[in-house]
Parts: sequence; C-alpha cells; structure tokens
Amino acid sequence: MIAGDRRANSGQVGPVFNVTAGPAGATAATLAAVGQPVLYPYDPDFLHRYANTAELARQAFGTTETPVILQGEAVLGLEAAAASLIRRDDVVLNLVSGIYGKGYGWWARRYAAEVIEVEVPYDSAVPAESVRAALAARPDVTVVAVVHCETPSGTMNDLDAIGPVVADHDALLIVDAVSSFGAAACDFTAWGADLVVVGPQKCLGGPAGLALLHVSDAAWEHMAGNPDAPRASFLSILDWQDAHRVERPFPFTPSVSDVYALHACLEQYLAEGPAAVLARHQSAARAARAGAEALGLELWAADKSICSDAVTALRLPAGVDEREVIARARAESGVMLSGGQGDLAGKVLQIGHMGPSAYALSPVVALTGLGRALRTLGAKADVGAAIEAALTALDDDDPVPSS
Amino acid sequence: MIAGDRRANSGQVGPVFNVTAGPAGATAATLAAVGQPVLYPYDPDFLHRYANTAELARQAFGTTETPVILQGEAVLGLEAAAASLIRRDDVVLNLVSGIYGKGYGWWARRYAAEVIEVEVPYDSAVPAESVRAALAARPDVTVVAVVHCETPSGTMNDLDAIGPVVADHDALLIVDAVSSFGAAACDFTAWGADLVVVGPQKCLGGPAGLALLHVSDAAWEHMAGNPDAPRASFLSILDWQDAHRVERPFPFTPSVSDVYALHACLEQYLAEGPAAVLARHQSAARAARAGAEALGLELWAADKSICSDAVTALRLPAGVDEREVIARARAESGVMLSGGQGDLAGKVLQIGHMGPSAYALSPVVALTGLGRALRTLGAKADVGAAIEAALTALDDDDPVPSS
Amino acid sequence: MIAGDRRANSGQVGPVFNVTAGPAGATAATLAAVGQPVLYPYDPDFLHRYANTAELARQAFGTTETPVILQGEAVLGLEAAAASLIRRDDVVLNLVSGIYGKGYGWWARRYAAEVIEVEVPYDSAVPAESVRAALAARPDVTVVAVVHCETPSGTMNDLDAIGPVVADHDALLIVDAVSSFGAAACDFTAWGADLVVVGPQKCLGGPAGLALLHVSDAAWEHMAGNPDAPRASFLSILDWQDAHRVERPFPFTPSVSDVYALHACLEQYLAEGPAAVLARHQSAARAARAGAEALGLELWAADKSICSDAVTALRLPAGVDEREVIARARAESGVMLSGGQGDLAGKVLQIGHMGPSAYALSPVVALTGLGRALRTLGAKADVGAAIEAALTALDDDDPVPSS
Amino acid sequence: MIAGDRRANSGQVGPVFNVTAGPAGATAATLAAVGQPVLYPYDPDFLHRYANTAELARQAFGTTETPVILQGEAVLGLEAAAASLIRRDDVVLNLVSGIYGKGYGWWARRYAAEVIEVEVPYDSAVPAESVRAALAARPDVTVVAVVHCETPSGTMNDLDAIGPVVADHDALLIVDAVSSFGAAACDFTAWGADLVVVGPQKCLGGPAGLALLHVSDAAWEHMAGNPDAPRASFLSILDWQDAHRVERPFPFTPSVSDVYALHACLEQYLAEGPAAVLARHQSAARAARAGAEALGLELWAADKSICSDAVTALRLPAGVDEREVIARARAESGVMLSGGQGDLAGKVLQIGHMGPSAYALSPVVALTGLGRALRTLGAKADVGAAIEAALTALDDDDPVPSS
Repeated sequence: MIAGDRRANSGQVGPVFNVTAGPAGATAATLAAVGQPVLYPYDPDFLHRYANTAELARQAFGTTETPVILQGEAVLGLEAAAASLIRRDDVVLNLVSGIYGKGYGWWARRYAAEVIEVEVPYDSAVPAESVRAALAARPDVTVVAVVHCETPSGTMNDLDAIGPVVADHDALLIVDAVSSFGAAACDFTAWGADLVVVGPQKCLGGPAGLALLHVSDAAWEHMAGNPDAPRASFLSILDWQDAHRVERPFPFTPSVSDVYALHACLEQYLAEGPAAVLARHQSAARAARAGAEALGLELWAADKSICSDAVTALRLPAGVDEREVIARARAESGVMLSGGQGDLAGKVLQIGHMGPSAYALSPVVALTGLGRALRTLGAKADVGAAIEAALTALDDDDPVPSS
Repeated sequence: MIAGDRRANSGQVGPVFNVTAGPAGATAATLAAVGQPVLYPYDPDFLHRYANTAELARQAFGTTETPVILQGEAVLGLEAAAASLIRRDDVVLNLVSGIYGKGYGWWARRYAAEVIEVEVPYDSAVPAESVRAALAARPDVTVVAVVHCETPSGTMNDLDAIGPVVADHDALLIVDAVSSFGAAACDFTAWGADLVVVGPQKCLGGPAGLALLHVSDAAWEHMAGNPDAPRASFLSILDWQDAHRVERPFPFTPSVSDVYALHACLEQYLAEGPAAVLARHQSAARAARAGAEALGLELWAADKSICSDAVTALRLPAGVDEREVIARARAESGVMLSGGQGDLAGKVLQIGHMGPSAYALSPVVALTGLGRALRTLGAKADVGAAIEAALTALDDDDPVPSS
Repeated sequence: MIAGDRRANSGQVGPVFNVTAGPAGATAATLAAVGQPVLYPYDPDFLHRYANTAELARQAFGTTETPVILQGEAVLGLEAAAASLIRRDDVVLNLVSGIYGKGYGWWARRYAAEVIEVEVPYDSAVPAESVRAALAARPDVTVVAVVHCETPSGTMNDLDAIGPVVADHDALLIVDAVSSFGAAACDFTAWGADLVVVGPQKCLGGPAGLALLHVSDAAWEHMAGNPDAPRASFLSILDWQDAHRVERPFPFTPSVSDVYALHACLEQYLAEGPAAVLARHQSAARAARAGAEALGLELWAADKSICSDAVTALRLPAGVDEREVIARARAESGVMLSGGQGDLAGKVLQIGHMGPSAYALSPVVALTGLGRALRTLGAKADVGAAIEAALTALDDDDPVPSS
Repeated sequence: MIAGDRRANSGQVGPVFNVTAGPAGATAATLAAVGQPVLYPYDPDFLHRYANTAELARQAFGTTETPVILQGEAVLGLEAAAASLIRRDDVVLNLVSGIYGKGYGWWARRYAAEVIEVEVPYDSAVPAESVRAALAARPDVTVVAVVHCETPSGTMNDLDAIGPVVADHDALLIVDAVSSFGAAACDFTAWGADLVVVGPQKCLGGPAGLALLHVSDAAWEHMAGNPDAPRASFLSILDWQDAHRVERPFPFTPSVSDVYALHACLEQYLAEGPAAVLARHQSAARAARAGAEALGLELWAADKSICSDAVTALRLPAGVDEREVIARARAESGVMLSGGQGDLAGKVLQIGHMGPSAYALSPVVALTGLGRALRTLGAKADVGAAIEAALTALDDDDPVPSS
C-alpha cells in the first residue's frame, strides 16, 4: 500500500500510503517483476511467460476456459465486451446501481437493438427480484449487464442471486467484476457468467495497463456470430482468443512489462490462496467500516450488507469538501484517499482496502489520515475512537490471521 | 539491448540480446523507473509526473502543441488516428510500401468515403512525385496517410519530400512514425504533419503499452468536427486532449508504470540530445548493413538510400527458413532477431538497432548470432568478414563517438 | 519504512513496517539505485560515482575534509577507529552511558596504554562536567571516546558540551554518531571531533554494508604515526585515505551495490536539506514519545531532555516479555519493533523513527502495532489515546510540515 | 554481463559490457533481489532468509558443514582466515604462483611462528611435487595456504593434486577459491580443505560485499584453540559460527541487501546445476583463449593446461600500454576489460568470463572491443579471425549447449 516517496512536486518528502479505490499499488515482488528486462514478444521465454500468465489467470478464476488478457486497463475490457458481445439484434437489460452501471448503458446502446434498465439509487443494490421481474416483462432480453462492485460507492450487487435468474432466462450475462475479484467470492461458472471483466490493478495488486476477461463458450459463439464484433482492432476480443498459445501470433505487441506484473501478482494470489486473500479483504473492510463510523462518518451504502470488502465509501459531514479532505490527508500525513467521480464527485470519499492495502494496519493509516484532515478543516473526528473501533473489528477475526 | 536472462522455459540460461525490430528493450535507468511504486493517478505527484511526461514529449517532438499519450501500444494510436480523424466524407490517399501501409488502408476504409492508394513493391519507397501525381488526379483527397518507416522491411518513405506535397494540396497528413522517431530526423512541423504516431518501445527504449501522438491544431479541429470520432471510448483521442493538465480528470486510469517508463526514457533522450541519438542509430545501422552484406546476405531494400537506421531487413539465402535461423540464433547465442509478419513471413529477417540496441557492439552481437545460426543450418556465412566490415563502418564514423 | 512483504516463512502475507532501531529501510529511489547493474570498480563511471559519493558525504557532513567510506557496516568503522587511532602509548577516556559506550572500552583496551572510564547508568547521559573532571584528574589522557546516540537506550550525550571540553584538553575525540547523524544536529568541526563514525543504514536510509567516517587532519596524522595502525587490512582506515580519488586504486573491491545506495541516499538527504531532515525526525520523535506515554509506557530515558530523535526506547510493564511483544506486533500487525541487546535484552523496547521511518504516520503505525500486541498479551494499552497524543504532538509542529 | 548504461561521467551513453576479472555483474533476477525492501535483521523473514542462504551455500559447496557468510568482500575472508586459523605456533607453507599467493604470505607472517614459501613464476602453477618436497623438508609445517585461481594471471593451482599431499602431511589447508568456485570443479571435502574462501561476486554473479567460507571441523577446533583468534571483531570468523541459526543473534548488522543478492545467485546456481555452470565457463573460456590467440595475443599462462576457465590473462604486444587499451575499449565499444594489479600492472590484460559473463557471446564482445582498441592504438589485430576462432571453439562444445 506504500506507493512511493513524495517528491519536490508536492513540496514534501515521505512515504505515500495508497489507500484509494485503485490502482491499489503493488507488492515489492510485483514491482521487481515489472522492472525485469523487456523481452521481444516472440522471444521463447516471453511466449511461455504469456501462456503461463493466462494459465495462472485460469486457475485464479477457477474456470475451464482460458481467460483473455486484453492490452489495456479494465475499461478496455468493458467497452470491448459491449462492442464484441452485443449484437445489433440484442435486447440488453442493464442493471444500474451506480455510475459504472449507468455508463455501461451508454456503451450498450451503441451496439444493441434496445437497452432497458433497472435502476436503483446509487447507495443501493439491484434486487434479484427486480431482475426477475424485468426479464419476465421483457422475454426478448438476450443480454444482461451488471456491475458486481460499484467502486465509487463501495456497493455490491448480489451475483449469486442475480446470476441464476439470468441463467433461467437464457440470456447472456456480462459482469463488471473489475474491483470485486479477490475481495468477494466470484464463481463465474456458478453465476453462469458469459463475459466477466477483472481489473488486475484492484484486488490483485497488478498492473493498470491490462484487463482480464473470462469468456464462456456461449460468449465466444455469440461474438463469432456478430458481424459487427471488432476485428483487427484494439477493441477486439476475438483477435486475442488464441493469443496465449505459444504457436500463435499476437494481434499486436502486448504490453511486456505489464504482463510480467500480471504474472507476478497471479502467482502471489495463488500462493496465498483465494480464501486467505478473501479473508484479509474482509478483515480490513470490517475495520475500515467500524473505524469510519467511530470517526463520526456515515457509510455511503444504505445497508451495510451490500458494502464492498474492497472499498469503503463514506459520506462527509455537511460543509466539508471532499477534495479538500483528500488534499489535506495527502499533504499532512502522506495518506492518499480517493473521491467521487461523475455524479458522485464531491459527495463521497473512499478508503481502499484492496490487494496491497488489504491488511490490518491499512485502515488504521487511512483513518488516521482522514480524521486528522477532518480536524484540520474544522470538523469533529475522534481518531482515537476510530482506531480503537478498527482494532476491535480486526480482533473479531478469529480463525484467520487478521494481518 | 540485453533483455533478461534465459530461463527454464527455453531450456537454457544466459543473457538474451534483444536485437529485434522492437520492443527494443530498455536501459537500466528506465527499468528502475518502471519498477517504482504504483501511485494513484490523482496523487499530486502522479499528476505532475504525467504533465511533465507530456511536456518532455513536446520537447522531444520539437512542437508547440503538447502531444497526447494514449494508453495502449502504437497500433492503438494508429487505429485511433483513423477512427478519429477520418470522417465519412473524407477521401483518403493511402501510400503503401509495406505491410503497415497496406494495413492502414483497411482501417481508413472503415471510416472514409473512399480510399485510394499508391502502392509500390515492399522493398521500395513511395516517390514524392507519385504522391503529387495521385493528388493531381484526385483533387478531392482530403487526408493522406503514410508510414515513415516500414519496420518489417526496414525501409523509409521520404517525409521531407512527401510532406510539402501534401501540404500544397491542403490535405491532412497522418504519419506512422512508430519506429522512425529517434532514428531518423522527424520535423513534424516542417512536414506539415497533422497526426503522427510514435511508438515509445522502439527508438526511445520506452514502454510497449503507450502511444505518443502529435496532433496539429488542424487535426484537433477536424476531429472535433467529426460526429463519428470516438468519445467515451478506448479509441478516442479527443477524450485525452487535456488529460495532461493537472486539474483535468483522466478519461480512465492511465497505465501508471508505463508512464514512469515513458518519463524516464524521454528524460534520457533529451539529456543525450536528439542529434547524438540520431548519430548512434546511423552508426549502428551502417555497421549492421555493411556486416550483413559481408556475411553474404542481401539487404531487403531495393536501394540502400531508403534503408532505415532503426532496423535492417535482410533476405535469406534460398532454402533457409527464417524461423529456423531465428530459433537457432536464440538457442545457440542468446541473440534474439526478428522476422517477417503477414505477407513478409518467411521472407525477411530483421536486425534491430534501435534505442537500447543502437550502439557499436549491437550489430556485432547480432551478426555473430545470425552468422553462427546460418552456418549451423548449412548455409555459408563469413562471420569474421562481417565483423570486420561492421567495425570498418563504425570507424568511418569520425565526428561522433561510434559507441 | 515499509520493508517488504511478509512471506511463507512467517506464515503470513502483507507489508512489514520497519520501525526498528535500524537498519531503517530505504526509500524506493534508494532501492532502485541499489538494484542498478554492477559495474567493475575501475569502470570510469564507477570511479566517478565513488568520488561523487565521497563528495556528497562531505557536503552532508559540512566538513572541509573528504570523508572515508569503509566497506563494512558501522561497527567496522568503530573498530577500525580504535585500531587505527589509538596508539599503544595513548591513554583513553571512554565515556559510558550505554552498551555501545561500554563496548567501546573493550576495543580501546586492545590498543591503548590505559583506558579509564566515566560511566553513568544506562538511562542517563554523561555530563560534560564529569568529562572535565575526569580530564582534570588525568592530564595524560590523549584520546576521548563517546557515543552520541546510544541506540538501544535511545539516549544522547551532549556533544555540543562535551566536544569543547575535550578540545580544551587537547585530546583526540572519537565519536560514535552511527545513529544520530540526520536526527540530531552534528557539527563535527565545532565539536572538534577527530574521528566520527556514521552508519548510513540509520537516519540516512542507506545501505547496511558501509560506514562513513569523518577524519580530521589531526586524526590522519595520529594514525600515520601509529606503527600498529592496520594496513593491508580490512580494518585499515589509512588504506582508504585516497580511495575516492579517481586516479588511485581501491585497496580491495568496494561493495558496488552498497555504494550506489549510499550515493542515492546522500543525494536525497541533500535535496531535502539537513534542516528539513532534522525537523521530520524531531516531529516523529515527539509523536512517538507522546504516544508511548499515553499508551501507558515509560520512556527508558531518565530525563526527556536526553531522548534521541532517532529512536524511542521504552520500559515495558512488569511481567511483559519484550520479545513476545515484538513477535506479536510483527505477527498481528506487520509492525517490526526492536528490542534490547546485551545487558538491555528483555528490558527495553525501541520504536525507530529514522530515515524512511521518520514521518508523521510512522509513530502511529508503531504505536498501534505495539498497543495491540500489549493488549493481546493481557496488558492494558489505550491505543486510541496514544494515537490522539501522537497526533497532537505532530500538530504542535507548526513551522515545518509535520509529514 | 551488461553492467549498466554509460552516463555523462564518461561523456558517453550506451550499455557497458562487464567482461572483467570481477565483480562480474549480476543477472536481472539477482538485481531484482538486491533491490528488495530492507528488512530489520531480526525480522523473522530475514532470519529465515539468512538461514536459507547459508543452507543454499552448503548445497552449492556440497559439504556437510554449513558455510559461514562474512560481511565483507573476499579479502575479508582471506584476512580473517589468516587471523583466525594461524596460531602463533603454526608453521605455514605458503604456495606462491601469483600476487594473491604472494600477498597471503604477508598476512600469514602476522600470525605464524614462521612462514616458508614455494614460489614459482607468476605464469606458472605450483607442482604438487614441490609441495610434497617442501613438506618433507619441513615436517613442522602445520598449515598450508594456496590460491586456487590466481585471478590477475588467470592461472590455476591443481588442488586435486595438492590437497591429498597436504592431507598426507596432516596440515591444515587454507584455499583461496575466490574466483575459481563455479568455473572449476571444487571438491572441498576430497581436497581435505579446512578453510576455503569463495567470492560471490565472481563466478556466482553475486554481491561484492560478502565472503563465503567453508570451514572444516578441524579448522573450527584450531580456531577455537587459538587465543589470538579475533573475537568481537570484524575479522572474526568464530563470532559468526552460529549466526545462521535463527535463534542466535548476529554479531553485528549483516549487509541485508547483499544477503538478498547472495540468496538469489545461489538459488540460480543450484537451479542451473553445478555441472551446467561449469560447462558454460569452460566453453566461454575456450572461446576466449582461441580468439585471443587468433587476435595475435599471447596467453599469459606459460602452459594452456593451467589456464583458468573464469578469466583469461593475456600479454600485450610490446609498446602497447594495457591501460590505454582498456580505456579505448571502454570508450569506443562499451567493453570493460581489466588489467594488472601490483607487480603485474602494465603487463597483463584480462578477459573475464565468469558468472553472468560466462556465455557464448561474451568472448565475442570482449574480443571485438579488445581488437578494435588495439587497432585504434596502432597494433595489428585480426578481429575477424578472432571471432571465427572463438565460434569454432564454442562449436566444439558438443554435448553441452554452448550458450
């Protein structure tokens, strides 16, 4: 969660604690990997490294299909999914519980015959029952799109419930699991998910420049049958279908250094074990939520049961400008928090506890920086109580080591 | 030019000399930069780093406009240029002297009203006179697209001559300078170039995951007036127009580690000085060409005057399989050469001397690995003569230190 | 202050916060430097790097003499100082206020005609008046040895007062400034110090494998006149007198990677500025002391005025085993504290705030890990109060940014 | 073998090929290790890393005893061996075939009752028969000291023959295997060697700041019985006897970063396998020797059978100044060669092929840089013939891949 040393630019010196909504930083082992010499992509060692990276991703995903590595950050994966999977005769049901869900509707409209939406307030989740009702009302829906974790608002949609509903309807399911994978149980197969986009820079602590895609056989078939699916394009998924096979050419030059980072972070994920990774995200999240409430702040989520374990979104006291808080925490304490985007700008502040920042002391650092900044700006904030609450939450965590 | 240590994958151990057509590797200083901790993109230090990177690119380009950094490798830049600049009412003249030029026609056809081409054999360059004639025949041409260096065939089109012809016609000029920038004099302003794509992973020794774009005011205007220009898309250039301003948001998460690498390699480029960088590319290229001929191989280019100083393309003796030569050189000597792509596969072999491999001993290493492999495969190859010829070529290089 | 990621060895994963008495870790910039390719020591670039490192050390020391870089950690410097400077006819006055002072007496006795000592309890400092009295009693004293900061007990001897007393007596002055340089004002010239040993791995955040020595002209003369001074030995200082001159050979191979690290950390020290470095050590130290007291612990030092700003030493509650506390804090929270050595083992616990750990949040992290461990072990510890006290202490720090 | 990028200091830019007599550089994997965060030495992860490093060294040595890691470069090991093992009642037979052997006599005389020597010209080896004769003449010899590989002159003493002679005499055997381990078969047990010093910075491609010592039970016993053996000293071996046990304290702070490097290079050595490492040193050495002779130079060694496979020492043509050749090769070609030391200065030039420079293309690079420099200085040098001869020598190497 340490992200470098502050320099002359900001007029200060010292470590920066990256406790944002991501990119979440990287472990020292991952940074060492990313700095390895740049091989030619057809160097036999790179071809095997690439193939092995895809295989590690498959193991991490727990799927039988080999995932696709796209050569751009998560939004490339999301846009490519819309462009490739959604055919001009598809009717898309888009589930909206935040700004990423809202945005997906815009992409879907570029390609679909029609897009209908179920929208809930951005502090809420889309109930599976609403999905069932919407599908019942529109039997012609062929594709459903949903965001697992709405990063800016720190809320989850319940894919374990929604997935089967979509499967019953026989629609294809697109899932934005960019920031949830690693912090939440993700069973793509049980969900019946067809195209899932994961962002390595979030809970895996990997590179910002790549996207990981689970693509089901049905999705491959649907894309192959889509005459408008991008090909010979940066937006193409089909171009990369076999790129992990050492005997096949890459459509274009892969991002060599980022592939090293992805390989390294997947190795670490598998070595630690998915259950352990999950547990430390849960533990850190519990501490962050408890601490934030003790600090006197309100969780953004209307209901604690939908809170993400990757990121905690908070409402600030009236009259306190989120951007000033963030700037203060960074300047005073070297603590980098993140804030709202789009419609949520100025309304919400996030503490990230993902990947390299999903550890015991991470919420302590975040809460201290946050509380101190609030006080500097004239708001009340009981930092001591916040730390105590965070520690209590950590110590609740018996079976799994909390750190 | 050293690109890591061979590992178990290839059954061997030892340094790898990356003397390919790119990515060309990176200096130790650049690798140190790419391995620095991953900051949050809105961290003040990153914002300033990003702004400074764009400013260094501007200085390197010698332009008044601040270049755009796109978050994917060079082909993203090329595709985005076509998608953004070429309007549905544009008539495009596409100049074809190799497979990248040929490919650009496909992209142009997606967006243009019509695409006409001047095509020459792939071992040749497009004469400026042919461009003038084509434009005279079609006064309705509004955009001209040209590849400066055709990397696979190691040939150059003369932009100093073509640029003014296009300017006289008042057409917009798209230039693929992906592998030429740094190895050839590039005066975007004098050319009257409107959209130039540079690949940092070639002669700058930078990251594979970014593209650098020079965009003229006229190009910005043309894109702004293009109702089909991508927006809210990974293919968008317009989205990134102001991203280098610290107060503006990024359209999506930039590739943090790659930006570090780009910043580092631009700093080194400017510290060394464009003239010195050019000189060592010229010197290494001269040595590679002289050595290859002494080895008994033929330059791919029909005329030595159009040879690139970034990459030397060679024809192999009849009956020698390029892929076997490359595999042998890598396995025997740790020398990684590159080969044909598309229509050129199996016909051409490249020695790269770009960025971190544009130094005195680089052609010596490449020629030794190549000659040794040729002999192993039963071809004749006088390696000793090749090295002597390369050294003589290096030593011709009086005023500028050859190494 | 982050020192890597915990691994399988300790059965855990996560960041480690190195808040020990040193080595104190290193910034990302220093780690990048230490990982640069290993040059041959007579490579012209290394020769200049070495010379420049010595020059940066001179600037950091604010001396006219160029310091000596010895190729082993601080104790090599201390032992070499005794072996080189103390002649068989010297009478040494050794000042003892802790275990390092005590140990120096053992070394001094190897070489001196006689060693006399002024010893005070290890939670105290040696008064300048005691030095004056001792010297008055023994006019034949020719060398005085003193430890500036007793790292294990976190206490300072007042060199500003002791230095002139020694100078009045015309004795040579050996100073162990291993852990004080950077955290305390050190004016070697004003002190009249003749041989000062600085440990780069403490407040400079540099390598553990080197020692930095200030040597006065008088000290060089005394060593040159010492027939027993080591020569052709790892313990020799004389051998390295001119090693920083590019035209002179090294006595043996210098530790290339460590020299890179030293160069980097000195550059950062000078760029930040000695006053700013001092200020952040003072600020972090104030926070650590206030927090520790609020946690219910007692400072080891009998008097707060002699507390070091590099390291805070604490007494633990009766019945609490220091080693268990340290192990717990590391296991639960990833917080690495340090403990007693020699006679102080089991009695004292240290929080380091030196170099890369001398920042605002560092004491917060240390206090949280410590308090949490104390509670786990059944002791009382009000972590919330400790954090509040630390923050108050930080915020007292008006003129200088506390972070 | 690449050792960084040339910088402003030398007025040039470009890769440096470190083909010297060592430090020989490090692989990218080792450099990544050395740049890992600096742990506190009593951090449980570091304790285990240290213990594991000693265990890997034991496996590399093929011994039952765990080696000692001393915290300074090889000469510390050599001096400490003399200081610790040689008692004031020992009679030492010192074998001299070069400047390191000569120097060892000086150290031995500091500690021994008497030192006798067998000395041969520095282009020769000490015959086992001479050792037998010397021991027969002086039955009171209790310790024999010998240099396995005389680095500056690139010559070997035959330990397989000398070892048993010393064992027959029941004397203790000190071996300087600093630059031979890895390039020559070293069976410490079969030799009956009692104290062997290995330099990690030579054929292991490890750190310059550590020494590795094999110590036999007999040597431990002899040291324990030596009242003058250093203790509480940087020169002590006894202090470090148990330092690899995780429950034991370090005598002083180990060089943390260097230990990481040692761990990494030992892992790589064992993964590659001792036989494979040996084979590539032999192959590169054969190429260097053949190439140098074809270049018109004379091997320094009087007899090719005593040439080291780690370093090739050469005589230069009359009238050619070795230092100028070295400077030229570095400036023109980025090739760093090494030269004489002490009595050999100005007389001998070395090509290193050790560790990271013991690969196929390394002699090619070295010979090209050397030959080019000779020609620049007006000497004759047939570089083409040298490269051809080197390749022929490499290709002789059938069973083992030469690269």
